[in-house]
Amino acid sequence: MDYDRPLFYHVMAYAAEADRDVIEMVSGSPDWEPPAALRSGLAEYAEAEPDAFQYPPSEGLRGLREEIAARRNVDVERVIITNGAGEANYLAMAGAMDLFEERADGSPSEDPEFLLTDPVYPYYPGKADLLDATKRYVAAEPDGSLDPDAVREQAAASGDDLVAIVVNTPNNPTGAVYDRETVAALAEIAAEHDALLIADEVYDKYDYTGRFESALALDRSNVVVTNAFSKSMAITGFRVGYAILPESMVGGARTRHMLVNVATSRPAQQAVLDALRETGPEYYQRNRQLMADRMATFTDALDAAGADYTEPDGGFYVMARFEDFPGTLENVKRLVDEAGVAGMPGEAFGDARLEWVRFALVTPRVEEAADRLAAFFA
Amino acid sequence: MDYDRPLFYHVMAYAAEADRDVIEMVSGSPDWEPPAALRSGLAEYAEAEPDAFQYPPSEGLRGLREEIAARRNVDVERVIITNGAGEANYLAMAGAMDLFEERADGSPSEDPEFLLTDPVYPYYPGKADLLDATKRYVAAEPDGSLDPDAVREQAAASGDDLVAIVVNTPNNPTGAVYDRETVAALAEIAAEHDALLIADEVYDKYDYTGRFESALALDRSNVVVTNAFSKSMAITGFRVGYAILPESMVGGARTRHMLVNVATSRPAQQAVLDALRETGPEYYQRNRQLMADRMATFTDALDAAGADYTEPDGGFYVMARFEDFPGTLENVKRLVDEAGVAGMPGEAFGDARLEWVRFALVTPRVEEAADRLAAFFA
Repeated sequence: MDYDRPLFYHVMAYAAEADRDVIEMVSGSPDWEPPAALRSGLAEYAEAEPDAFQYPPSEGLRGLREEIAARRNVDVERVIITNGAGEANYLAMAGAMDLFEERADGSPSEDPEFLLTDPVYPYYPGKADLLDATKRYVAAEPDGSLDPDAVREQAAASGDDLVAIVVNTPNNPTGAVYDRETVAALAEIAAEHDALLIADEVYDKYDYTGRFESALALDRSNVVVTNAFSKSMAITGFRVGYAILPESMVGGARTRHMLVNVATSRPAQQAVLDALRETGPEYYQRNRQLMADRMATFTDALDAAGADYTEPDGGFYVMARFEDFPGTLENVKRLVDEAGVAGMPGEAFGDARLEWVRFALVTPRVEEAADRLAAFFA
Repeated sequence: MDYDRPLFYHVMAYAAEADRDVIEMVSGSPDWEPPAALRSGLAEYAEAEPDAFQYPPSEGLRGLREEIAARRNVDVERVIITNGAGEANYLAMAGAMDLFEERADGSPSEDPEFLLTDPVYPYYPGKADLLDATKRYVAAEPDGSLDPDAVREQAAASGDDLVAIVVNTPNNPTGAVYDRETVAALAEIAAEHDALLIADEVYDKYDYTGRFESALALDRSNVVVTNAFSKSMAITGFRVGYAILPESMVGGARTRHMLVNVATSRPAQQAVLDALRETGPEYYQRNRQLMADRMATFTDALDAAGADYTEPDGGFYVMARFEDFPGTLENVKRLVDEAGVAGMPGEAFGDARLEWVRFALVTPRVEEAADRLAAFFA
């Protein structure tokens, strides 16, 4: 197995080496403060007795699982703390493969398929490859939404080979927020094929329309919801996430989590637990508002620049399209050198947005970036 | 996939619920202070700028990889920071399977086998199961050492199916430290079958004989060495470990690490980096001496109690055998209730030590525990 450095790495390295000031709009790392209680929780932990530095339970600190279970209104036994949403998605997809194999009962004619969206968050096809599964894609609508009929059509093409539908809402890269009807339809389509719906909701605190509805609300036994504190608490490096699994999948996910990672890092878990207990809604509202304001500023400037863009309903990203300027790596490098703005080429996210460039708005220099783009395309 | 809670969990829960004072000698978590610089490093990190809380490089903080590479005298590119030795062993065994599959070129007649020792650290057969591989065991000698001829015989029985020999030195549970000749023979036997030697050296700082030699010293291209700071810095809960891989395996391991975990938790990495830079050899010597003293105290008392035991050359554990008292879970529970000492049943580690009980000496109450055992068996 070769290692392909993710495309974002190449773009960031290129931007870092540029001879000019570049506004970095590549990575999805928040640029604001974590909750105050996260810092104080970590500082307190640094003073704890030695036994607080030893193995936490494999499935996660009990207190953290209870806080999550109470907020999500699920049985605490269904909650596993993971090394970020990344591991949560891995456990969900690997668990879906286990269920598929039980169902297929070893028949070698089966060709397990994950149904993904195009554009797609690149880690999902990566994980499908790791699990020796095939990928099938359903194209998102121009506004980023998913048409349940299009999903049903692709699921039918997978037939008995469908393992799971994997979605991300609010969406990276499109900014779409799937409404309740869509999410319910996805779960129903998956169920018709004895498959799972895996909903990665890591941007759930950044819903600018109020339309977001967690797939947990469906209360269906074929739904896995994954999440993390990476974006909501501005701590992408802490690696604390969770999966909420149907009861039938909990045993397998715990086993895999234990055998791969033993447990999730305890200082990070403890700091998140303190932050979760002590942080009020105003922290999340403030950052959501900050992002909503940046979205408005940036899209206004895109309007002024005559660019096409998808109005984001949630998340951190805006996809934009400029006339006669496809979203290739080459053009993205031109933007770095000539406009001083680094974005992500649309080709990083599949085939459906080759004309587009994704901009992450987790920088205070959003307005300046938009002005630079407007000047470049003027 | 069902979830079997590890046996240690049942014993610890039983001991915690006992009606009497019980000395816990089950878990392998150090009971001493971490390095002072680990605490101060974590406290400083809690005050860092928000960007220090975001994604570290997937393969680990550059500074931490460089410190490790310098100490181990290897190219930094061969070092990957993992979520503890647990993930390092997973990456090593999964990578060995990848190499095996490339070699087997999809032939379905192949039945990949890991060659493990009996007694065995239970996570290794667990990981083999997770990877859909078969386990073959070579029995350790009565003193815990490995006879290369016995290993060669089992490797020959695996033949082309041999994926890797997986060993732990200093050993959990036997306390054996394999000498250089043994380690060299293991690597050679593996090479004869185009297989790997995976050496988990997490107890390398607890070598009481001075005989320990890292498999890295062999400088062979079919050797993976795994390690962690869990035991050496008394931070089993931090989950910072590493794998040192042959160049040909680095790409695959990075890809898998990225797709499963994205990265290793950054607060823990940063604290370990500070501790590694600022902690002198006296910290490690002090804890090694503490453990050596406990070993002497405990084995003296076992002598007085007329028990058989294996003199540990390294690690945290003593295996002991008492007359007419096999190391079953039932007898271990009797020791909890009637002697006030909790150990691990020999059956947790395979078939070769069914008569034995493993005691972890990571408690200040070692002498008291030995006295209790002596009184019980008097």
